[in-house]
Amino acid sequence: MLIVPEREIADLMTRDAAFAAVEKVFAAMASGKAYNFPVVREAIGHEDALYGFKGGFDRAGLTLGLKAGGYWPNNLEKRGLINHQSTVFLFDPDTGKAKAMVGGNLLTALRTAAASSVSIRHLARKDAKVIGMIGAGHQAKFQLRAALEQRDFEKVIGWNLHPEMLSNLEEVAAEAGLPFEAVDLDEMRAADVIISITSSFDAILNADQVSPGTHVACMGTDTKGKQEVDPQLLVKADVFTDEVAQSISIGEAQHAVAQGLIAEADVAQLGAVINCTNPGRISDDQITLFDGTGVGLQDLAVAAAVVDLAVEKGIAIEVDF
Amino acid sequence: MLIVPEREIADLMTRDAAFAAVEKVFAAMASGKAYNFPVVREAIGHEDALYGFKGGFDRAGLTLGLKAGGYWPNNLEKRGLINHQSTVFLFDPDTGKAKAMVGGNLLTALRTAAASSVSIRHLARKDAKVIGMIGAGHQAKFQLRAALEQRDFEKVIGWNLHPEMLSNLEEVAAEAGLPFEAVDLDEMRAADVIISITSSFDAILNADQVSPGTHVACMGTDTKGKQEVDPQLLVKADVFTDEVAQSISIGEAQHAVAQGLIAEADVAQLGAVINCTNPGRISDDQITLFDGTGVGLQDLAVAAAVVDLAVEKGIAIEVDF
Repeated sequence: MLIVPEREIADLMTRDAAFAAVEKVFAAMASGKAYNFPVVREAIGHEDALYGFKGGFDRAGLTLGLKAGGYWPNNLEKRGLINHQSTVFLFDPDTGKAKAMVGGNLLTALRTAAASSVSIRHLARKDAKVIGMIGAGHQAKFQLRAALEQRDFEKVIGWNLHPEMLSNLEEVAAEAGLPFEAVDLDEMRAADVIISITSSFDAILNADQVSPGTHVACMGTDTKGKQEVDPQLLVKADVFTDEVAQSISIGEAQHAVAQGLIAEADVAQLGAVINCTNPGRISDDQITLFDGTGVGLQDLAVAAAVVDLAVEKGIAIEVDF
Repeated sequence: MLIVPEREIADLMTRDAAFAAVEKVFAAMASGKAYNFPVVREAIGHEDALYGFKGGFDRAGLTLGLKAGGYWPNNLEKRGLINHQSTVFLFDPDTGKAKAMVGGNLLTALRTAAASSVSIRHLARKDAKVIGMIGAGHQAKFQLRAALEQRDFEKVIGWNLHPEMLSNLEEVAAEAGLPFEAVDLDEMRAADVIISITSSFDAILNADQVSPGTHVACMGTDTKGKQEVDPQLLVKADVFTDEVAQSISIGEAQHAVAQGLIAEADVAQLGAVINCTNPGRISDDQITLFDGTGVGLQDLAVAAAVVDLAVEKGIAIEVDF
């Protein structure tokens, strides 16, 4: 039994490794070699916490297990702990024995950033120059850092409900030597790639605020009721997702589907583009939209990658379990 | 983070501790202080394995977590490992952080034995003398050992599809200084308590093979399609269970309910008897039947108990996670 504590993840895991793991598992999902189990998510009636399990099995990578944990909204204020707490458990698919336990907090941030990054690699125009961010919280920094590696961006623009947080984006842009500009939503028309990463329950971005040829990655909607963009944008765009069932029920596509504007069949798997069974972007005028809902297999993939890195570097704690 | 490996459980866990933990959590379930999450159970398409998660939260005992694992039918033959493999993970309900990892194989056997034992304590006649076993496999020994502690039994009788396995029961009877007799099913009429613990998909025990006043614990049926007793026995008996929703869908009561012989309302929680909100046995002629389906909270309860014992004895492995 191998253990990789949360504190070791930052030094071990790279954005490259997270990208490779997520890209690979999206491909395995689309080719039917990997699948996610039903998600368990419970309001446990204690500390206002949401707790649950996201599991899956990747027959290609032989990765089996789950992420367990959830959201404890009082952690930070009461205890100085982060509110999202999760742990990944990997099992040996040949025997059913527990194989590894890995801190899941930073990994969750990295795998979410990797997902929009994979969508940019496969769906954004090659000549994309301006990246627009909607949302400027803690997770937005992860998304932007990973995204900047995918194209030769020349400028970052950003909008946030609370403008004082935009300094988060400015900081990441500066790391990459790029200028940053705070914009209003109409000015998002200048963006070639847009990432939305908010916890909004109302559409923020209108369909007419997105220019032809743009790739939009909606990363914030993971629950019934949440929404980041105008459902009309999903009509105008070619829509891709990590998992179709989640996209149309708890993802950004839930609204356009519920309103009858698009059908389930209009939502394609990003993995199919990776596998070249779906052409993805076919013109420079096309709007592509990635609905990133977050699946357990992403967590398992990055956890398996970090276990390999930890073993390689002699950092994994071995317990005779 | 505390770790209690499988190899330590046998020396740490007692039948008394398992009994106390299971009785307490059944009581908490019946009073609405503890609940089980939806069960995830997947045929993963690898090694013919069934894998999944049984989770729950006990607000009274502050026990949160899950048992993960399943059934790997080729383990024994291919690798000399037992086919049922499981691990229990406990979480801190105040913070969402992983708190303990406990080997779940022996604990599963002990908590299943404790469940029929709790049902005997609360539902069998005080003057029960003869205990009848249907099934004589590995788990039957656990059930019998725990059951013998609940009444002043004077004799063990047993039936098994493969009679050569009855020596398992004879061995446990001998440990307790009791005579054992192999019987046919008609002779089960001599039993005051009957435990069925098989993996049968057809009724074994007929309703007319059970005498008035008997307590029957059906412990083998935990899946759609499995069945140990004639549905008419559930009509004649007062039926109790660990969890009503499981009893009527995957437990022994599934058949009587599906055939319209009894209704959901005819199945009571054993915990209500423990809490004295249900009178349980009210006459010496009444047949009582406990449908033990197995819930995640049982696993969490015995795992939490064993962690306490391991800490007390300085055996728990502490990992800075």
